Parts: sequence; C-alpha cells; structure tokens
Amino acid sequence: MIGAGNLATQLGIALAEKGHQLVQVWSRTQKSAKELASKLKCPYTTDISLISSNTDIYIIAVVDTAIESVLSKRNWNDTLVVHTAGSTPMSILAKYCKNFGVFYPFQTFTIAKKVVFDQVPICIEANSAHNLDVLKELAQSVSQNVKLFDSAQRQQIHLAAVFACNFVNHLYAIGEELLHEKGIGFEILKPLILETAAKIVEQSPASSQTGPASRNDQITMDKHLALLNSHPELKNIYKEFSDRIIQTHKKL
Amino acid sequence: MIGAGNLATQLGIALAEKGHQLVQVWSRTQKSAKELASKLKCPYTTDISLISSNTDIYIIAVVDTAIESVLSKRNWNDTLVVHTAGSTPMSILAKYCKNFGVFYPFQTFTIAKKVVFDQVPICIEANSAHNLDVLKELAQSVSQNVKLFDSAQRQQIHLAAVFACNFVNHLYAIGEELLHEKGIGFEILKPLILETAAKIVEQSPASSQTGPASRNDQITMDKHLALLNSHPELKNIYKEFSDRIIQTHKKL
Repeated sequence: MIGAGNLATQLGIALAEKGHQLVQVWSRTQKSAKELASKLKCPYTTDISLISSNTDIYIIAVVDTAIESVLSKRNWNDTLVVHTAGSTPMSILAKYCKNFGVFYPFQTFTIAKKVVFDQVPICIEANSAHNLDVLKELAQSVSQNVKLFDSAQRQQIHLAAVFACNFVNHLYAIGEELLHEKGIGFEILKPLILETAAKIVEQSPASSQTGPASRNDQITMDKHLALLNSHPELKNIYKEFSDRIIQTHKKL
Repeated sequence: MIGAGNLATQLGIALAEKGHQLVQVWSRTQKSAKELASKLKCPYTTDISLISSNTDIYIIAVVDTAIESVLSKRNWNDTLVVHTAGSTPMSILAKYCKNFGVFYPFQTFTIAKKVVFDQVPICIEANSAHNLDVLKELAQSVSQNVKLFDSAQRQQIHLAAVFACNFVNHLYAIGEELLHEKGIGFEILKPLILETAAKIVEQSPASSQTGPASRNDQITMDKHLALLNSHPELKNIYKEFSDRIIQTHKKL
C-alpha cells in the first residue's frame, strides 16, 4: 500500500478484513506509515527504493499530484500497479509499468471514520483483459458494486462527486456557520441533512426540490437575502442557486 | 388542518397516528383537500368561511405568501391558531387572533415520502405561557426533539436549511445532470451522497471537508474546470466553492 492517507487507510483496512495480506506500507512520513502499518499489521518503509518486490499488486493511493513522482522512483518490473485517483487517467502509468490499471473506490474517506465497503462503487480499468480480471476479483472481494469505466468516464464521475459531495459538505459548513452566528447548535440541522440525502435514494433530486426557490416564493427569498447583507459571498451563492432552481422548475 | 401540501400532509398523518383527532381539512383546491381528508379520515372544505369552529387548534400549513390571506378570511375567536412557517414571524398572527403561536417542524417534506417524525426538531413559539404549554404537549406527542425559538432565531434556522438542504439537493441534481451527459446513471452517486451526509452526525462539516480544493490540488481543479467549459454557470460555482474551501482550510 503506497500511501497512508484517508483512502489508503480505509481501503487497506477493508482489504485486510477480507483476508488479503498487506505486504508493506509506504508513506513519505514515518508517523503516518507507522500508524497505518500498525492497523494493517505489516511492516512499513519511508524509502520508496526499499519497497518489497514480494507482492502481487502495488496500490498507489497518494494524492494525484504525487502519483508520477512515486512512479518514477523505482522499477516495477512485471508486477501489476494501480492508482486510485478519479481524475488521473490510466495512461499516466504506461510510461513506467508493464501491467497497470486503476482501482478507484468512489466514496469519501477520512482516517477517523470507518467505511463499510460493501456497497461502495469500485471503478476499475486495466491495460489488459487479464489485469482487468485480477482487479475485478480484488474489487469484488470488498464490494458488491464493481463497475468498469474508462478514464474519461471516471473523470466525469469524479467531477459529479465534487458537486454532490465536496460542495455539499461545504454547504453543510455554511449552514453550521449561520447557526453559530446566532448561538444555535448545528445539532438541529442533522435530521434535515440526513433526510435530504435519504430522499435521493427513491426520488430524482431534480424532481424532489423543495424550498422557497422551488415555490418561487420571492417574499421569503428577499427576507433571506436581507439576512445575508453582511455576507456578500453567501448572498451571491443564494441568488445563483435560487435562480438556477427557479429556471429548472420552469423547465420541468 | 388548513392546507394540504407537503407539510400539511406529513404533519397531519403524524398527528393522526398519535391519536389526535383531525377535525377537518381545508384547501383551496377540491382535489388536494379531498386527498388529504381521505388520508386523515375526516371531512374537508374548500370554503374558508365554512371551517368548523369545533376545534382546539387551527394549524395553518399553507405557503408563507398565503398565510395572511387565510388569516383575514374569518374570525378565529379565542381558539389557538398556529402557522408552520420558518421565515414568517409569529407577529403576523397578532392582528387576527387572540391566542396564537408557531409550530414549525424543521424537515423537508414531500407528499409522497413518509417522514418519521420521532427525531424531527419541532420549533415552537407562542404568545403566552399557557399557549406555549399547549404547543409543547402537542409537539412532544409526535417528536422527542422539541425546541423553543423566537421568530428571529427560527428565520436564521430556515436560512441555514436553504443552504444545507435546498441548495444541497440542487447540487445533487447538478451531479445527476453531469453523469447523464456522459450516459452514466445517477445510481453510482448514491452511496457517496449518503456517506457524506452520515459523516456530519459525528464530525463538524468544516473539519471533515475532502476533495481537490481541501488539498489545494490545482491540477485536478484545472482538469475539472476544463471539463466544465460548456457550462459557464457550473464553472463559476466550481470556482466560488473551491476558493471558499481553500480559504476555510487556510484558516483552520
């Protein structure tokens, strides 16, 4: 396991739990290498040239910007090498490896929160049918939701996730900030946030939009804009989103 | 129950299930009045002057913009009248009623999806201690999560919800749109959306932000912006949100 961040940690734990032998952890920093190695009960190194060759697969789970630097630092011989990044094409591996692919678990990972991998979509791609079979078997051992996508599709999936996950989380943070300003705890928003997410399992989000903009309730929107006078950036977001929702509902 | 929309429907069902007698449904349109009345097993009317006086409480669950029009159309005598709106102050009732308050279930409601009221925060406010007690008892009969807030606090709570629920849902719709463009089903986003919401139960959203902007990964952000060339509005949202996330993480 090359990397010891959020994804490396959760993927490593899931693989170990399914009986895969984690051979070694590499990380740039001793602290994080040691922490993950202890969770995975395997040795670690911080020296990329000392990575064990005794493995069936190298999983590169570092930030996108570090993938090429890791790739260039050793000879990978015939061993299968995968990266785990949404927006980095598989072709980045071709210059450095003979057998390669992508193993992209499509989920949000943090070190502290354990992820149940069972339903996590794992998007795989490989440079040969044989390597794809190997990745498919590995992916199916941790998830029932294995998908084949090429690099262009995977990048679009990642882009959609930035909106539907990363930016969503930022909206949660804005909600928290607005409540804290008036001394109200974030607690009160939690049932609403969970229900809003739960709704999309059954209904398309475009058709289940609620709120003042979906009703074109200009009076409530004006009240909200007035409350945001001291937050010009939020006021701007409020206008943009409300306009988009009003336009979408006209089309429906 | 005055109104027969999303909130009136779900609140009416929850009250009926807890053994409260729903006396009558009013709605402007016969179709929606009839539909809700049949769910609540009570009569209905579309004539506001024909609303039964034989009730302990009138619940006005119409859109904010229609509240005052409903209030002006009859004499409410001494009976307790509440509205259910987040951003309409309680004071709107003072001109028309002697006993009044607000009963605001803080959740997103759609007619088709049943809501488990048990943990839904119900924000109450009343013009007297006695009326507050009545509303507290009613609220506690359907939810364990009853909160006292004044109209200014309630409006801020509603504003926070527009960001953390309504705009969040719009981001889900954007994610869906981006996937459909490349022929990919929305299904793949569902586990991610559910996990992103589930995370905030344990972690503050500001501290659990993930994604390219939280890592200040300019290369991935540039790739995504290039993919959005044909969507100038989405490109704009992408830039704004990424900048805000980068700034927030500098402060942390």
